[in-house]
Amino acid sequence: MSEIPVIKIGLCGFGTVGQGVWKHLTRSRADLEKRLGARLVLHRVAVHNLRKQRLVKIPAARLTDDAMAVATDPGIQIVCELMGGTGLAREVTLAALRLGKSVVSANKALICAHGAEIFATARKHGGHFLFEASVAGGIPIIKALREGLVANRFPRIYGILNGTCNYILTQMEEQDAPYESILAEAKRLGYAEADEALDVKGWDAAHKAAVLAWLAHGVWVKPRQMVVEGIDRITPADFKNAATLGFGIKLLAVIVRDFDTDELSVRVHPTLLPEGSVIANVNGVYNAISVTGDVVGTTLYIGRGAGQDATASAVISDIADAASLLRCGRGAQLIADETLPARNGCKLAPPEHILCRYYLRLTVRDQPGVLARVASVMAGHHISIASVIQNPSETADAASLVLTTHQSHEKAMRSTLRDLARLASVIEVPVLLRIGDFND
Amino acid sequence: MSEIPVIKIGLCGFGTVGQGVWKHLTRSRADLEKRLGARLVLHRVAVHNLRKQRLVKIPAARLTDDAMAVATDPGIQIVCELMGGTGLAREVTLAALRLGKSVVSANKALICAHGAEIFATARKHGGHFLFEASVAGGIPIIKALREGLVANRFPRIYGILNGTCNYILTQMEEQDAPYESILAEAKRLGYAEADEALDVKGWDAAHKAAVLAWLAHGVWVKPRQMVVEGIDRITPADFKNAATLGFGIKLLAVIVRDFDTDELSVRVHPTLLPEGSVIANVNGVYNAISVTGDVVGTTLYIGRGAGQDATASAVISDIADAASLLRCGRGAQLIADETLPARNGCKLAPPEHILCRYYLRLTVRDQPGVLARVASVMAGHHISIASVIQNPSETADAASLVLTTHQSHEKAMRSTLRDLARLASVIEVPVLLRIGDFND
Repeated sequence: MSEIPVIKIGLCGFGTVGQGVWKHLTRSRADLEKRLGARLVLHRVAVHNLRKQRLVKIPAARLTDDAMAVATDPGIQIVCELMGGTGLAREVTLAALRLGKSVVSANKALICAHGAEIFATARKHGGHFLFEASVAGGIPIIKALREGLVANRFPRIYGILNGTCNYILTQMEEQDAPYESILAEAKRLGYAEADEALDVKGWDAAHKAAVLAWLAHGVWVKPRQMVVEGIDRITPADFKNAATLGFGIKLLAVIVRDFDTDELSVRVHPTLLPEGSVIANVNGVYNAISVTGDVVGTTLYIGRGAGQDATASAVISDIADAASLLRCGRGAQLIADETLPARNGCKLAPPEHILCRYYLRLTVRDQPGVLARVASVMAGHHISIASVIQNPSETADAASLVLTTHQSHEKAMRSTLRDLARLASVIEVPVLLRIGDFND
Repeated sequence: MSEIPVIKIGLCGFGTVGQGVWKHLTRSRADLEKRLGARLVLHRVAVHNLRKQRLVKIPAARLTDDAMAVATDPGIQIVCELMGGTGLAREVTLAALRLGKSVVSANKALICAHGAEIFATARKHGGHFLFEASVAGGIPIIKALREGLVANRFPRIYGILNGTCNYILTQMEEQDAPYESILAEAKRLGYAEADEALDVKGWDAAHKAAVLAWLAHGVWVKPRQMVVEGIDRITPADFKNAATLGFGIKLLAVIVRDFDTDELSVRVHPTLLPEGSVIANVNGVYNAISVTGDVVGTTLYIGRGAGQDATASAVISDIADAASLLRCGRGAQLIADETLPARNGCKLAPPEHILCRYYLRLTVRDQPGVLARVASVMAGHHISIASVIQNPSETADAASLVLTTHQSHEKAMRSTLRDLARLASVIEVPVLLRIGDFND
């Protein structure tokens, strides 16, 4: 019998996720080692500040404040980059990959900004870059897309990819409370960052959408190329109007590919979903992803989108995959090798090509004839109105005018918005939400 | 540059699933080949009857009626056993594995009956046995449990694993129609087999539960060791009563492990689920599985549970995995190697240890004092009644008495049932359903 191989792991970054990985890997190591046929050793940990007190105690000899030293340590085969950011994190990732090591990452912003470079480097030097934790926390959606559903092309992927936004929207609806007070509460509870912009403006979900779009379609889409709209203009009244119309409101990432025109649309925006649909009922910090494959049909995945434990679960599964690949030797390859543009050929759809139904909320002067003027503007752009709700507004002498449209083109809708904003009777910047007619 | 390796695939069985695999693999082969770095050749197909006309046309030279010849063909590296049954299917599977080939299977009955032998044979000869298609069709639940959630132990797994039953229950509720007429309709539509017993009595779900229990806990549980109850005694009145109480009714497989006592409970029975819960709203032929891991929390998976395309999607993902492992060479191992009893040590809980709330429907003589007698029997077994609904029954001079209980032991409930059946005022065999308090 040959000796059981030893695989040494280095952690760069020891915040919430890093400590979760240490804690759970220490707990499950005996099981994992039996199943992998290899010993897993947490060899070295790079922290930002050596003197900081931490809940998870690790021997001082294993600690360093030099992340690059961990990434280039000749004894270490698997490097977990859990620092975040796109500066040092990129250098550490590339340095480890250039040495043929495998890198496990939860860093969607890094992947989004430098994915092509990272995967090419991994491929060139025979290592692997694994990133299950970068999208939807503990839900094994990366593995599902790349391996479990490998027989499929993906006409549509959509879902809730940001737990902070989903928590805020859920609380706004349940408590009938305004955005600002729920955001403050979420910050107190640790569900929102001190600087909430990345989450509530939709950019975090856009990064994750970019990762999924690339996995599914082999194309890197930059968030700035997408329609990205956040949740910060939604009001409790929007939830009431949506409920009247039979909808809930979720911040969705939507990745749609038309295999006839080969146009790919990737976007993030608040969306009205039929209130009976499964995703409309996924609440709080949970994430949910609907994946429609051309062979399998629609499959749906729900779970916690973030947090120490869910993210650690994903990082450890990547460590196990990396260890498994290491045992196979240098030539071992993942299914769905990233650098092969197997499913390329699609082009990015201009945002104007979006075709959907819309929900439009206008704050207007409370006087006769306003609806006629609004309707006239919409008719001028061939936008067909499906329903109208008029309510008193919170603004004095104003009314709230809520319109839904039949299927319309984004291009016409944008021109409509521009013209409506110019009407003297329209007081505030209109709020435009899209209606998701996904039928599942 | 070395030549691209060729991997030859043999299909044993060319019914619905086999033809689906041929169709979709032919369509997606170019993509798959780029992603796998290997050519996939559908080399030979064993059919039951060579003369039968088939929708999918394959060259006569590739057809044989000798499944064993395909399994032992020296040119073939991956054998897909898609015949079903546990006789020839077992022989074919073992023959291929003994030659070091990998076998892909959708055959839960075979795995359930001969899993230990099959996995030991695969391990001994360096091949692999892959079975994603055996549970929940196109949902990649096997891969999620064995790889994606590898960091977790699983205190609870439950879900809808039989699409035929879910279709029947959904239609009964929506159409307010009796079991027999919906079953007849399901047969006409091809959603139920000519012999429906395996599905509606719960045995198919029990086979799948056994596969999941083994993956999660490393223990083979035979269906005859489980509580297995079907849907054939459920009536439209049960749906109405359940709705009054705030529940829907689903046939669930439940796999619960108590990590304190290390007792494992595996069972299949119709279950009342809170009507707002996600799984209560999974309808028609869809499957759904809730997996609670001790690290990740609860994750949920929904998709089509059967059918040509969903099953072919799963079989093709296994073929891709097998091809990937082949490219790694003979020593390559899957994560979560099945034959290592890493997570063993648990013992099967006796059915009497089930602890839950119950729904009990009695058909009783329509006369005074019956409720008192029933309540007295239940009190004698220390079963505490939570609610009572009395309705006229469809049987003449009879009433329907529906009781729900507080948390009770199965053992006390069984004694109660026995004593209730002996009461002169209880006309039919009582219907007992369990209430699932899963809180998600």
